[in-house]
Amino acid sequence: MIVGIIGGGQLARMLALAAHPLGVRCIFLDPSPDACARSVGDLLLGHYDDTRLLDLMADQAQVVTCEFESVPAESLQYLSRRAFVYPSAQALEVARDRWYEKQLFASLGIPTPPFMPVDSWQDLESAVTVMGLPAMLKTRTMGYDGKGQWVLRKPRDLAPAFAALGGAPLILEGFVPFDREVSVIAVRGVTGETRFYPLTENVHQNGVLAQSLARPTDPLAEQAYFYAQRLLDHLQYVGVFALELFQRGAELLANEMAPRVHNSGHWTIEGAETSQFENHMRAVLGLPLGGTKSLGYAGMVNFVGTIPEAEHVLAIPGAHFHVYGKTARAGRKLGHATVRAADEAGVCEALSMLRALACS
Amino acid sequence: MIVGIIGGGQLARMLALAAHPLGVRCIFLDPSPDACARSVGDLLLGHYDDTRLLDLMADQAQVVTCEFESVPAESLQYLSRRAFVYPSAQALEVARDRWYEKQLFASLGIPTPPFMPVDSWQDLESAVTVMGLPAMLKTRTMGYDGKGQWVLRKPRDLAPAFAALGGAPLILEGFVPFDREVSVIAVRGVTGETRFYPLTENVHQNGVLAQSLARPTDPLAEQAYFYAQRLLDHLQYVGVFALELFQRGAELLANEMAPRVHNSGHWTIEGAETSQFENHMRAVLGLPLGGTKSLGYAGMVNFVGTIPEAEHVLAIPGAHFHVYGKTARAGRKLGHATVRAADEAGVCEALSMLRALACS
Repeated sequence: MIVGIIGGGQLARMLALAAHPLGVRCIFLDPSPDACARSVGDLLLGHYDDTRLLDLMADQAQVVTCEFESVPAESLQYLSRRAFVYPSAQALEVARDRWYEKQLFASLGIPTPPFMPVDSWQDLESAVTVMGLPAMLKTRTMGYDGKGQWVLRKPRDLAPAFAALGGAPLILEGFVPFDREVSVIAVRGVTGETRFYPLTENVHQNGVLAQSLARPTDPLAEQAYFYAQRLLDHLQYVGVFALELFQRGAELLANEMAPRVHNSGHWTIEGAETSQFENHMRAVLGLPLGGTKSLGYAGMVNFVGTIPEAEHVLAIPGAHFHVYGKTARAGRKLGHATVRAADEAGVCEALSMLRALACS
Repeated sequence: MIVGIIGGGQLARMLALAAHPLGVRCIFLDPSPDACARSVGDLLLGHYDDTRLLDLMADQAQVVTCEFESVPAESLQYLSRRAFVYPSAQALEVARDRWYEKQLFASLGIPTPPFMPVDSWQDLESAVTVMGLPAMLKTRTMGYDGKGQWVLRKPRDLAPAFAALGGAPLILEGFVPFDREVSVIAVRGVTGETRFYPLTENVHQNGVLAQSLARPTDPLAEQAYFYAQRLLDHLQYVGVFALELFQRGAELLANEMAPRVHNSGHWTIEGAETSQFENHMRAVLGLPLGGTKSLGYAGMVNFVGTIPEAEHVLAIPGAHFHVYGKTARAGRKLGHATVRAADEAGVCEALSMLRALACS
């Protein structure tokens, strides 16, 4: 059995590592010859809309999935004629556009921060008049890890932000003074069966995820699951799915969704009954889903820009090291460590030690 | 970082899968073009004594390890000049010869079933006179999974057994009416630090391991650890090591040792804080060892000769499926399933269901 993955980065790599034990090999389509997944599967080197390569993928793979949402819709439609494509082109189309995404949240009764589309300078001025400042001006598509967004604090920030981002379709989002950021990682199978991992509490730094902590008894989990279930059922979703939310008081506001395995679910590799990567493979292959409970207390720290020595990471009790095999570059995710402990104090202590390594 | 592995079967495959997250790639030396590890690393195709391939391995790998004990001693000595070889040639030399192995057990005060070397028909007759029947006549080397051994029950069994096995150096072992078979999986690092996994209770069928069950509170664990520690320290061992023992009453008798990751440790993949494969890689790379506690209750069932459908295996709560990608053949290990549960009753129930799948 072969699964095709659009993209050959670390998410594809970790999917392939989870696929091998199931007797499944992965092939990746990626334009970079350095795509780090290639050491665990076969790389089709080229662009995402290269029909010759899409044909090669469909010739071999019974199922195709994606490691990112900005895959050309035409490519997915092309593949859909010859292979199962999970999640669907529709799910990706919504998820890659902040305006579609927020509209879907709103239409399903899922609270969000205020938002308005911005297609012109006039739109921006009126959106700021309606929503006030501070606010976030973001490109509707292709933004990730803090890229493609500007914080507007004062009226004088509007012009440079619009100049920098203008041209692309934009969205203005209200700046929510949140108490914390959480995410829910879910997996939905072809039968509609859905399982949720414990709510995950996330800390970002410079727009990039720095740390996740699983909260197996979080009182807001049920609310988050309820919102995620609505989205999943509406999209007839198959695979792993992430919904990022802000907590403000007792309320959760949906920030964005990701139609794929997600950085805030990396703790599940050693920290849950079944990793998000294995469960994604199970889901897209139509296999029974695995348990999603956490094993004790678990968390994760990202290594961005630089990566510590293995001997320092592994000296921390309960830590496991995950290196992606990518060339170091400022702001680039190069690896992460998971940690598991018998109690929350233990995992928090280990996370602090890992954060210190990540910053050194 | 690259690690060379002598052998490219399922143990090499699972070692390589555990190595990738550590940023380590594996290259395998194996004479079979179908070596199942090749899908997760690079295969050097050829014989274990091919100096051109050993040179190629030493050119790339800083560390070399083995997935089986019958590696030519000369190959290991050749590699040792240019790379670290763990475990040592000495450990493999003892472990691959039942006579050396049993003598080492005896010299370190580790009880064993009675044994005598058999180099001639006269030796066999006198050994049977001394030890009585029933007894096991085995080749000293190259025996595994019940191969290369005959049970002698009656005097008339001696001649056909000797004819079948004769020519090779043999050993006669007393037939021990044991209560159960257990194994201890240990890992020893370059600093001498040693960690033990919970004692594992094993069930064999037709000479092949059928099932393992971790016994985290087994009263005989300390005795088994004590014996294993003596062997490990004596051999200055580095890596994962297995010692198989028979329990007879309150006594443990050493049966054999394996200088490598071991089938009875496969349950550790999902069932322990750190899998035996990750810990072997950590040990041979000189990295800090990972925890060896079990996560709840865990066990494993082997799939030999045929392999069930993934959907049936994964429908069993707590089960994970491990397929090796090998062509099916009678008596061949094709895969296994691990299972983890909150209590022993849960894991035993799942093991029964898996055994039923394994036999169907």
